[in-house]
Amino acid sequence: MSGNSGYVAGLEGIVASQTAISMVDGQNGRLVYQGYVIADLAEEMSFEEVAFLLWQGRLPNRAELDALSLDLASQRTLTQASKVALDALTTDTDPMDVLRSIVSVQGVEHRLEKPRVPLAIHATASIPTILALFHRRQLGLEPIKPRADLGHAANYLYMLSGEESSPEIVRALNTYLVLLADHGMNASTFTARVIASTESDLTSSLVGAIGALKGPAHGGAPSAVIEQLELIGAAPDAETWMRDARRRKVKFMGFGHRVYRVYDPRAKILREMCRRMNPAFYELATKVEEIALRILHEEHPERPQSTNVEFYSAGVLQAIGLPREYFTPTFAAARVAGWSAHVLEQAAHNRIIRPQSEYIGPEPRKPVPLSERA
Amino acid sequence: MSGNSGYVAGLEGIVASQTAISMVDGQNGRLVYQGYVIADLAEEMSFEEVAFLLWQGRLPNRAELDALSLDLASQRTLTQASKVALDALTTDTDPMDVLRSIVSVQGVEHRLEKPRVPLAIHATASIPTILALFHRRQLGLEPIKPRADLGHAANYLYMLSGEESSPEIVRALNTYLVLLADHGMNASTFTARVIASTESDLTSSLVGAIGALKGPAHGGAPSAVIEQLELIGAAPDAETWMRDARRRKVKFMGFGHRVYRVYDPRAKILREMCRRMNPAFYELATKVEEIALRILHEEHPERPQSTNVEFYSAGVLQAIGLPREYFTPTFAAARVAGWSAHVLEQAAHNRIIRPQSEYIGPEPRKPVPLSERA
Repeated sequence: MSGNSGYVAGLEGIVASQTAISMVDGQNGRLVYQGYVIADLAEEMSFEEVAFLLWQGRLPNRAELDALSLDLASQRTLTQASKVALDALTTDTDPMDVLRSIVSVQGVEHRLEKPRVPLAIHATASIPTILALFHRRQLGLEPIKPRADLGHAANYLYMLSGEESSPEIVRALNTYLVLLADHGMNASTFTARVIASTESDLTSSLVGAIGALKGPAHGGAPSAVIEQLELIGAAPDAETWMRDARRRKVKFMGFGHRVYRVYDPRAKILREMCRRMNPAFYELATKVEEIALRILHEEHPERPQSTNVEFYSAGVLQAIGLPREYFTPTFAAARVAGWSAHVLEQAAHNRIIRPQSEYIGPEPRKPVPLSERA
Repeated sequence: MSGNSGYVAGLEGIVASQTAISMVDGQNGRLVYQGYVIADLAEEMSFEEVAFLLWQGRLPNRAELDALSLDLASQRTLTQASKVALDALTTDTDPMDVLRSIVSVQGVEHRLEKPRVPLAIHATASIPTILALFHRRQLGLEPIKPRADLGHAANYLYMLSGEESSPEIVRALNTYLVLLADHGMNASTFTARVIASTESDLTSSLVGAIGALKGPAHGGAPSAVIEQLELIGAAPDAETWMRDARRRKVKFMGFGHRVYRVYDPRAKILREMCRRMNPAFYELATKVEEIALRILHEEHPERPQSTNVEFYSAGVLQAIGLPREYFTPTFAAARVAGWSAHVLEQAAHNRIIRPQSEYIGPEPRKPVPLSERA
């Protein structure tokens, strides 16, 4: 009826944006941020350095990195309105809903400002504070003030626990944050760009992106990986449980991705981190992975199957000591860097993102008056 | 680099969804909701009736309409957390930011529930309450309790002012809410559907949609129409001001739409309402409209030009007595019906909306170590 045709379910294969921020090379298993492959960034660079790269399009020199680190460290406090709103949420609130709500409140002071790097810094700095404050409230513990002498990853862990974490743990969280900071045109990043395309503000984009990341088909999966591994129990029982699960149409958590046709380069790094840091998880998870990929291949030999980033993320975040309901919010703490970069890019070369729909409803007819309706 | 080509700026012309909810027939100037043209709904039906139509796909009978009206009326209260969070926002906060934040807080109790009509009712019922409470706080006035004996439009006006509005004013707001309740695949509705496609919840979709509507290229324009008319001043000065404005590259507010090639059917109805209700606005606005369309045609004779819905919306909302910073939030109070309907439809036939991007950044190279960067 609308005169259009060619509906593309899920916009699969449609190129919605040009971007210099990242490239997901699914054929070759490469993730590139602004011209650097992820393997060269993940264990060498701080999250701050990579955030600079995503926002500015190049790596910082020492002075620039110090300035950004200082900026981030100085903005780890919440506005009075954010503190009051956070304290008003009951302690059983989903931390993703806390994040969606408090990132919104925290951003009201920027009204309709055009997206700029300082606003990205402000949002990125505040997310760990929001999560740590709420987590401590859930536990009935006093809030911990941020420490400006600690980096982004170290300070997040410090605000959660009140203690400095070991260098190995801090490094692991930093690597996780770098690995998850951006990933081409995923659903939450696309949400952020659509919102930005109406000339709305950065906060509105980030709040929408958090809502999209919450979905189990996007970022909401890593805690489900742990839950499924707990159900499986132990490596020797895995195959029996998993074959039975497939008969009951249970989905294996942490497998399959629309883009990668070979091993996800992030999963490869996280897998190795699990081996070092979380041997119990690693033993079970590698067994489950092998069986899952085998069963999925038996069922659909024509489909490429692969382990996605959520699978080994779960083991790393568990080893770091994060409660599982903070896995997806911590994903958001990483991805905020990429979301912001995409919003800055969208605002710089904007055109409203407004696709069409195809009408499949009834042909227009006259309404029956209310009194005559059955 | 990503192996793709065919980037479509703004996804223009791409069909992203099939929908039975509404059709924008730009060639013939028709807007259809579930098989009824807008002209048959706008002045005949209550917003409640149209919300039922959008959510259920058919018009309600008397018992169904009464049940929905009762449900909406019984859910006009905010949660304790929402009240506290709303009171924490400073009175200079943009009402769109208030709405984005408090709709988020109001929805936390639903966590990750699958979208259902009762959740749409809950969200739709709460939006006028949020706006009225905040508006009265801005004025330093006590909140007004909702009245269950008033319909959706009448109760919104009552909570804003503390007085019952005249039947003509209530009817005008009702017509506005019906006219703006849905409009095919606009940017905010698309945002809501992308978020829903990750299997996230209705609240997350609505919060993202509010953020998109806030953008001046989408719903953020009607207050700018009034501001421009004030600058123009009076009908005899209009042409001089407007020709000078074009020399200074000033955009005329309220003109142009990607879809309509003929007069927007909503603008037609709103124009007639302005004539009756807001003669001063009508006199100036019709003159400005005539000149704007003439100048735009002179500049680009090849482009179809038309008056968009924001132009005469501004005059109607002004006549109703709404402060101009509540024009866009009141648009949200209407569109929440459509957003919810699209989320329900997306959830019922879901596939994750995940387009691709085309990488235009540098070719991968090795990073220079920090100590060696200039």
